[in-house]
Amino acid sequence: MSTTSYDVCAIGNALVDVIADAGEDFLLEHKIAKGGMTLIDAERAGTLYDMIGPAIQMSGGSAANTVAGIASLGGRPAYMGKVKADQLGAIFRHDMHAQGVYFATSPSADRRMEIREVPNERRQGAPTGRCLILVTPDAQRSMNTYLGAAIEFGPDDVQTEIVRDSQVTYLEGYLFDPPEAKKAFRLAAQVAHEAGRQLSLTLSDVFCVDRHRAEFTELIKNEIDILFANQNELMALYQTKDLDAAIAVARTQCKLVITTRSEKGAIIAAGAETVTVPAAPVAAVVDTTGAGDLYAAGFLFGLTQGLPLAESGRIGAMAAAEVISHYGPRPQKKLKDLIRKNTAVA
Amino acid sequence: MSTTSYDVCAIGNALVDVIADAGEDFLLEHKIAKGGMTLIDAERAGTLYDMIGPAIQMSGGSAANTVAGIASLGGRPAYMGKVKADQLGAIFRHDMHAQGVYFATSPSADRRMEIREVPNERRQGAPTGRCLILVTPDAQRSMNTYLGAAIEFGPDDVQTEIVRDSQVTYLEGYLFDPPEAKKAFRLAAQVAHEAGRQLSLTLSDVFCVDRHRAEFTELIKNEIDILFANQNELMALYQTKDLDAAIAVARTQCKLVITTRSEKGAIIAAGAETVTVPAAPVAAVVDTTGAGDLYAAGFLFGLTQGLPLAESGRIGAMAAAEVISHYGPRPQKKLKDLIRKNTAVA
Repeated sequence: MSTTSYDVCAIGNALVDVIADAGEDFLLEHKIAKGGMTLIDAERAGTLYDMIGPAIQMSGGSAANTVAGIASLGGRPAYMGKVKADQLGAIFRHDMHAQGVYFATSPSADRRMEIREVPNERRQGAPTGRCLILVTPDAQRSMNTYLGAAIEFGPDDVQTEIVRDSQVTYLEGYLFDPPEAKKAFRLAAQVAHEAGRQLSLTLSDVFCVDRHRAEFTELIKNEIDILFANQNELMALYQTKDLDAAIAVARTQCKLVITTRSEKGAIIAAGAETVTVPAAPVAAVVDTTGAGDLYAAGFLFGLTQGLPLAESGRIGAMAAAEVISHYGPRPQKKLKDLIRKNTAVA
Repeated sequence: MSTTSYDVCAIGNALVDVIADAGEDFLLEHKIAKGGMTLIDAERAGTLYDMIGPAIQMSGGSAANTVAGIASLGGRPAYMGKVKADQLGAIFRHDMHAQGVYFATSPSADRRMEIREVPNERRQGAPTGRCLILVTPDAQRSMNTYLGAAIEFGPDDVQTEIVRDSQVTYLEGYLFDPPEAKKAFRLAAQVAHEAGRQLSLTLSDVFCVDRHRAEFTELIKNEIDILFANQNELMALYQTKDLDAAIAVARTQCKLVITTRSEKGAIIAAGAETVTVPAAPVAAVVDTTGAGDLYAAGFLFGLTQGLPLAESGRIGAMAAAEVISHYGPRPQKKLKDLIRKNTAVA
């Protein structure tokens, strides 16, 4: 078993989710891509927020949700991501610590001393990023992300000693959107491999794959050990409508390729071996936000505990089932207890 | 029917709720009064927040929850309460507007220009108030309130034209805690009566009753038309263990006395008349926060729509049942649709 201090360290865009119900017509009227993640600027974030219904606020961010899940399962995760020292940033920080995630990235600097003659809010730097999530009656979520302070995460924020001291370094594809974060991603990858650690990537989102296909393909081929994707993302990556064909390519490039397929369960490809894992039952799907993030949490927890692939996949399925049974992208129940009830292991 | 612009205008402490699960042992260890509302200062709010688990954030505030419920039912409510122009204040304001509540109280002033030589955060005035709510496994909620900017609500914030233009002015007992808010309460009461409108009070909390018993008793006798209380609050008010005796006194003092008794349903006393209303069924009680607030919402909605007492009580029971079936003090479903499904009226 591991001699590292951390099972998984993750780097991602640190965000607070703002979750509201919306009708299909609202998405159409406001040109919101259903089921996807759209990057928006501060102005759009403001006007969109003015139009959405009453909301609930919870810490979010894809990779952050994953490490929160790992902590809830009893694992030892670390996280790096950038918030600002404001109220939403305090919420994000609190939830990381309260969940048991090591998180010490310094908040974005107040630029008051550096930039003069600009409006007060600019002088103080961008606020903590947020994701306006609209949940339609079919429980599908459509995400509108204002990166805010997350855009300032850069190579200097990569705590290389943590990367070296983690079995797996987990990176979200969304990191390729802010230019400095991409540099940080590259640095973390290099450090992880030099230390003999494993590198994991989630493709994040179909649109994200479209934006960064060439770089993702090269990265997966040369650097990624463990790839997470849903079926649409993997098919988008290889520009095919044939999932089996996409998996056939991916399995030649990464040691482990985990493809989630919502209620149809997941396919784990490990070299020549293929393991299929059914989805866990859910009484009522309320909000699918975080399903992929929590699947990755469960799988990485199992993997870093040395469990078999099928068992790791089953824990992923259970963690995903919990998170889609309520609003918000993080577990409401202690996953460790939930898993213990449903399995002999862990 | 009404010729006013608003059915109900409410005044209350404007708060954002921070909701986390906690064990019974946590309440004991940190001396938190179970089921009650304890006022805490900024320092205690900070240390307590550091100790609680991952949280969700939602707009709250007792009377604010009530008007949110009235809006969700299709009524026309207004609200007055004080936040600061910060991120939590923006959340509170957004949710009021998004729910359809008229809310135009100016945020607390930034004191930067007035007070010098004090730390930055003091200079800028207290932040938006918040309530740290701990939910134990039995779904009971224990509240720890840092009033923050709410403490600055005063008589100048009472929009007297709104009070005059509302069928009912609804005041929360919690307003008696901040001294300026109590003055505002008194002013609103005077304006409402001079305009021939009805005045309603909720006793809020047993500890609140203990703090303000003499004033509450005098107020109820002389000014309140519609009194809301749960059984413990009403018995605390009259310092008796006999609920019937407490109701017997109260009914001689207010036109309408609505006593909620959790799963045992409510007793509505209207002069010599008594109407009992059963609780509405709930599949699973998750978090009792907002139960009383939403009962008042449903009842006041029915009353201001001219519905019979029993029907108003039944709408209150359904609104309360919805809010205790999930985390947070405000409806997740559009109550108008929920009520329509379950009743011929409305």
